[in-house]
Amino acid sequence: MDFTLLKTDVGSKARAGTLTLDHGSIETPIFMPVGTVGTVKSVHQRELREDIKPDIILGNTYHLYLRPGIEILEQAGGLHKFMGWEGNILTDSGGYQVYSLSNNRKIKEEGVHFKSHIDGSKHFFTPENVMEIQRSIGADIIMAFDECTPYPCEYGYAKNSMHMTHRWLERCIEHLKKVPFKYDYAQTFFPIVQGSTYTDLRKQSAEYIAGVNADGNAIGGLSVGEPAEEMYAMAEVVCDILPQDKPRYLMGVGTPINILENIALGVDMFDCVMPTRNARNGMLFTSEGTINIKNKKWENDFSPLDPSGMTFVDSDYSKAYLRHLFAANEYLGKQIATIHNLGFYLWLVRTARERILSGDFSDWKNKMVNQMNKRL
Amino acid sequence: MDFTLLKTDVGSKARAGTLTLDHGSIETPIFMPVGTVGTVKSVHQRELREDIKPDIILGNTYHLYLRPGIEILEQAGGLHKFMGWEGNILTDSGGYQVYSLSNNRKIKEEGVHFKSHIDGSKHFFTPENVMEIQRSIGADIIMAFDECTPYPCEYGYAKNSMHMTHRWLERCIEHLKKVPFKYDYAQTFFPIVQGSTYTDLRKQSAEYIAGVNADGNAIGGLSVGEPAEEMYAMAEVVCDILPQDKPRYLMGVGTPINILENIALGVDMFDCVMPTRNARNGMLFTSEGTINIKNKKWENDFSPLDPSGMTFVDSDYSKAYLRHLFAANEYLGKQIATIHNLGFYLWLVRTARERILSGDFSDWKNKMVNQMNKRL
Repeated sequence: MDFTLLKTDVGSKARAGTLTLDHGSIETPIFMPVGTVGTVKSVHQRELREDIKPDIILGNTYHLYLRPGIEILEQAGGLHKFMGWEGNILTDSGGYQVYSLSNNRKIKEEGVHFKSHIDGSKHFFTPENVMEIQRSIGADIIMAFDECTPYPCEYGYAKNSMHMTHRWLERCIEHLKKVPFKYDYAQTFFPIVQGSTYTDLRKQSAEYIAGVNADGNAIGGLSVGEPAEEMYAMAEVVCDILPQDKPRYLMGVGTPINILENIALGVDMFDCVMPTRNARNGMLFTSEGTINIKNKKWENDFSPLDPSGMTFVDSDYSKAYLRHLFAANEYLGKQIATIHNLGFYLWLVRTARERILSGDFSDWKNKMVNQMNKRL
Repeated sequence: MDFTLLKTDVGSKARAGTLTLDHGSIETPIFMPVGTVGTVKSVHQRELREDIKPDIILGNTYHLYLRPGIEILEQAGGLHKFMGWEGNILTDSGGYQVYSLSNNRKIKEEGVHFKSHIDGSKHFFTPENVMEIQRSIGADIIMAFDECTPYPCEYGYAKNSMHMTHRWLERCIEHLKKVPFKYDYAQTFFPIVQGSTYTDLRKQSAEYIAGVNADGNAIGGLSVGEPAEEMYAMAEVVCDILPQDKPRYLMGVGTPINILENIALGVDMFDCVMPTRNARNGMLFTSEGTINIKNKKWENDFSPLDPSGMTFVDSDYSKAYLRHLFAANEYLGKQIATIHNLGFYLWLVRTARERILSGDFSDWKNKMVNQMNKRL
């Protein structure tokens, strides 16, 4: 893995860089579409490759472990080959899904016992076996096994959990030292900063993580219901401590505004289900503001989905047509909205990058944040 | 409209022709994908245009009349513009949907009273207003308003119904004589032969329809549950009477075998929900036979969906991957299967055409029928 920092913004801490992995280069800041079980929901791989062009997508260890299962992924030669995606893949470690299971899991020092949401079958994740699962999946970037604390979280719990996440991190690193390449390409490891919304814990965790000297670093445990201001405050504290010359990944974030504000704080990588999940509910993010396409007001609006036209759906379809598809409960509506929203998110981070490189990021960001607050 | 018959097969009555309408030329025999409410379910218009290339698709008058409604379609400038499809469109007349509503409709000489399947609201279709609805939709080919009788059907009912369909036909024709072009292109009218599974009624109806001297003719009331042999018998009787120099459209048919057998009897045009509906249930039609992709046997079969590869999905995805998508209930699975099946149907009719032109249709047809009977 190589990370080259090309420019840091004058008016903010925003950075433009290039991250090179064995499945190609990624221009940062980047948004990674979420491909939960080996598919970015309702999007063809060709559309990812030729229209949305994210360079890297995310897969979920928990979901892929349950379906199709590690055996089949290994037989296929890894997730890239299984799903027909030649770009990069990052896998989360299952920590967030384990957190979501709440009543169906038990967290211990050794690892996490949990029940499958599909059939209730019992499973056990440890730092060591989660590394093995991610190696088998074949992700280009594999994430440390961590505990994602809820919001709000008591200080004592957050502190103990953070320390356990640090101990788990050591176990991940120890395990990875012992094993050779799984496939014919490198798999890079990112540790995760935790510490809930407590500044002192976040500082302590960021210093610990920085000390590990990994190729890249992640910030976890945010975007779990806390106010945006707390998220920004934590991201700022952490970014100021994490190494300048390594990529920083803020996990599970967020709205277009969240992304712009965190880019301004020095974050390089993002992922979130929002563009895809909200698309399936009829919410479009556009260059002019947010649209609920189910609204009757679009019924006879034959203008394109977004005049700035990020992907083919913006020129091929009108608002009235998309509104009709949602009213008639036609799945093509969800497909169109998903491609539009992913196109918009990728446009957003690409344009942010251009603005960082051209030196007028902050002005543009403030204007865009204003625009993104509009509901059309 | 222009129809040029290029060749008739020596060993059968199969025909190859070219049908030219104002939205482009159609090579026959042709299969028309069904786009019920202005969308071929889960298929992007770009995929229709560039991958499946059907030249003509079908829209359903009943569904489009209810949603989005005629007012919006007229404001859009017709269905082509509304949905962003520049190829040809044929609309059915609503006769089949009215037949499907069974308990929610009352058929009288004047027309059909029915209740919407969406909200139970009351509506009235007459031969005259169904012509107007199809004109507003803007179909290139509009179909006569008919009664589609069920199977089995008593002789007396079938006979009376056929005569009413003929009287309705006169009303359609009278109405169309009085009205100018709706949009800036021609809309061609096809009458429909009825008569259930009674040879004498089919002959009588086919003679009546032939006498109308329309630009093309359709065979309705088949593919409603009768044995394939009865369908073929009726299609043969009717094709032998309908004019040679006009295209013949067998409505709602059918399996790949049904299509091949009816091509051999002289049918030029087909439509059916089977490739799309069955795809959504995990059934693939391939050049090697039929596949239920949900079957566990495909779990680790990493071979392409179909080695003959009609569209991009056949090379982009493996059977194991598609099986996984269905197992995980991921909508991309339905999208992939739909494109595959439509690609296969279009490949089937295109190859039939090539074989007719090259003079070895019958041999190929018999081989294919054999292959299509296989369940893999």
